Amino acid sequence: MPVVSAPPRVVVIGAGFGGLAAAKELAAVPVDVLLVDQRNYHTFQPLLYQVATAGLNAADVAYAVRGIFHHQPNVAFRQAKVTGADWSARRLLVDDGDPIPFEYLVVAAGATAAYFGIRGAAEHGLPLYTLADAAAVRNHVLSCFEAADRDPALVDDGALTFVIVGGGPTGVEVAGALAELFAKVLRKDFGRLEVSRAKVILVEMADQLLTPFSARSQRHALEALRARGVDVRLGEAVAEVTATTVCLRSGEVIPCRTLIWAAGVRANPVAEALGLEQAGAGRIVVGADLSVPGHHDVWAIGDVAASLGLDGRPLPQVAQVAIQGGKHAAHQIRRRLDGRSPAPFRYTDKGTMATIGRHAAVAELPGRIRLSGVLAWFAWLGLHVIMLMGFRNRLSVLLNWAWNYVTWDRGPRLIFRPEK
Amino acid sequence: MPVVSAPPRVVVIGAGFGGLAAAKELAAVPVDVLLVDQRNYHTFQPLLYQVATAGLNAADVAYAVRGIFHHQPNVAFRQAKVTGADWSARRLLVDDGDPIPFEYLVVAAGATAAYFGIRGAAEHGLPLYTLADAAAVRNHVLSCFEAADRDPALVDDGALTFVIVGGGPTGVEVAGALAELFAKVLRKDFGRLEVSRAKVILVEMADQLLTPFSARSQRHALEALRARGVDVRLGEAVAEVTATTVCLRSGEVIPCRTLIWAAGVRANPVAEALGLEQAGAGRIVVGADLSVPGHHDVWAIGDVAASLGLDGRPLPQVAQVAIQGGKHAAHQIRRRLDGRSPAPFRYTDKGTMATIGRHAAVAELPGRIRLSGVLAWFAWLGLHVIMLMGFRNRLSVLLNWAWNYVTWDRGPRLIFRPEK
Repeated sequence: MPVVSAPPRVVVIGAGFGGLAAAKELAAVPVDVLLVDQRNYHTFQPLLYQVATAGLNAADVAYAVRGIFHHQPNVAFRQAKVTGADWSARRLLVDDGDPIPFEYLVVAAGATAAYFGIRGAAEHGLPLYTLADAAAVRNHVLSCFEAADRDPALVDDGALTFVIVGGGPTGVEVAGALAELFAKVLRKDFGRLEVSRAKVILVEMADQLLTPFSARSQRHALEALRARGVDVRLGEAVAEVTATTVCLRSGEVIPCRTLIWAAGVRANPVAEALGLEQAGAGRIVVGADLSVPGHHDVWAIGDVAASLGLDGRPLPQVAQVAIQGGKHAAHQIRRRLDGRSPAPFRYTDKGTMATIGRHAAVAELPGRIRLSGVLAWFAWLGLHVIMLMGFRNRLSVLLNWAWNYVTWDRGPRLIFRPEK
Repeated sequence: MPVVSAPPRVVVIGAGFGGLAAAKELAAVPVDVLLVDQRNYHTFQPLLYQVATAGLNAADVAYAVRGIFHHQPNVAFRQAKVTGADWSARRLLVDDGDPIPFEYLVVAAGATAAYFGIRGAAEHGLPLYTLADAAAVRNHVLSCFEAADRDPALVDDGALTFVIVGGGPTGVEVAGALAELFAKVLRKDFGRLEVSRAKVILVEMADQLLTPFSARSQRHALEALRARGVDVRLGEAVAEVTATTVCLRSGEVIPCRTLIWAAGVRANPVAEALGLEQAGAGRIVVGADLSVPGHHDVWAIGDVAASLGLDGRPLPQVAQVAIQGGKHAAHQIRRRLDGRSPAPFRYTDKGTMATIGRHAAVAELPGRIRLSGVLAWFAWLGLHVIMLMGFRNRLSVLLNWAWNYVTWDRGPRLIFRPEK
């Protein structure tokens, strides 16, 4: 009788784009996969800004991890927060329950907001990286309007002034969506309030928005935001934040109750907890094949990893890098099992997009194809519909979008907080 | 030039079924309406049990109040919690902002869970009366499964034992929906856990479920629940609750981490804060016209009011009593403005329903029409579709239902808690 040994166990930390891609790609590999995440759902991060601006419900962009793998029997899930590793025993330490043994490990823990030591930013800034972050921004923005409706004098104190730091895609998207929310929806909700007094201020340190985009796209984004009434401050930075003000480096003090932080990210603290070597912004140092130096059976992918492009510069912290990295790590595990040598990771840039508002977006696709305006907006819509195809909530998302598009209304503007 | 005086101001406390009905009915009356609620959304309470059991998303049963009144210019909204009244100055005191003056007042503040002084019940019991309650139940139930998956030994300690107290419609609906959630969905989600060891226990003090229903409906509900594996304990009550046990009056101690409290309600504490005379369960004493004795211009309606039926007994705390009461209060205000005398409130029983699970429900309609099984289930579905017609989220609800029906899956099984 032949001895049947258990298949080797791959542990994947993080159920973001990278972790899901790795686990899915391991479907046909003779391994047991354990996906570990502190939340029981995947967050579709590119649409978090729509949750923050009441365009979508929180549940529209979150997908129960266990449901995603109903039809992939070699994937199990464990809800836990990774707190460290016992490398000699090949076990992960977690906040709740026994350590988790592994033979291969894929670290795909993502990123978190970076405040660069700016005073008050961590305390008063609202990041936009998790579902709870997005719900908190929505609750806060709508509560500011309720407060101003109660006491219009608060508007002079900045109750309706919303500062966004960071002119990358997230900052641009939030600024555009907030301006539309105010002008199209809240103007009707708050009939007795001068909603036109609400201000959206976008602060960007560089001299242009959307730094990695072409100059034409940058101009289009700037014009489209300004046309929507967004006050864009280029070559400007935040120096200090208090509960009631944002102080800019130029010395200007903006009375304001809301600072949305889209200025930068750093690697998830798991990178530190694991004790792996970190590069800039806490990202885990990886080799050309995405394996971690000194840890032969460990790969790091996506936002948490300092993977380098062919030009020797770190790859951007975007979904495509994580997805392709996750697939690559899965392929490396298969190669290892097959006794083949590792292969280097080659990132294929599939383009990048940002949407500013209804009928306004910029898209830069391979082959120097640059779209802007209505065409880019429909390209953005189409791409996200395709990306959502794999998920159950896509119909709900489409329904919300269709409703918002046709009626200029937004349904999900609830101030919902657990009360216990 | 004629002197134009401002229309009199009606303040409505509570944006539940009663408060909304009153405000809507005042559309054609020359008054200014201010609707006051501590939340900025209406909660469609009959479907809360579906949020608690992952059949619907929280946002599916919540509707922004301001959106409901976009097309009714005489209604304004104020998000605030009422903390008392200055009756001589005719002003309501609130937790946030200036007191609210009124000329007419409709108290429609609803109810809250009543624990009847049972030790540990308020501390450990999970009520099911607000959206946050429902989300908390869902988070808790799913977290119990995650814990048991992590450490199956916890099942012996009651990690998968779910006790529901109260065999009225809410208790019956939660018990049935939980049993289906476990058998049809979580069994697939937790492939390595013996989900069949999960227990749903429904405890009811009376000798039958659904006390106000006919004996035939009661029997049907009992059989349908038992067929789904629910352990129904009739003539039994909870004596004490701890973090890890539920002690029954019979002396039995059930190891258990979850007690869902559907055993009874009492009037919202606003009734007490307003200093109005209270009858049983804290309900505000009202006259035949629903006005409050000694307060000529104040009406109380729905769950918060002790309105009496023609038989002299208090009316049930259900949506129809609140809706009809709200309309009645609006009509009384109109009569007052027209110089007419008050009219008594006549409640029309439009029937009552409870759903036990897929294809299983009971319905008792006027004219002694009693439905059970598939027919009652479709009647329930049809009624709720009609009730939801007035709300924006109805398509999302239908979509979720259709998905659940066709796939036997449930999308919204997220453990989502704000993290900050």
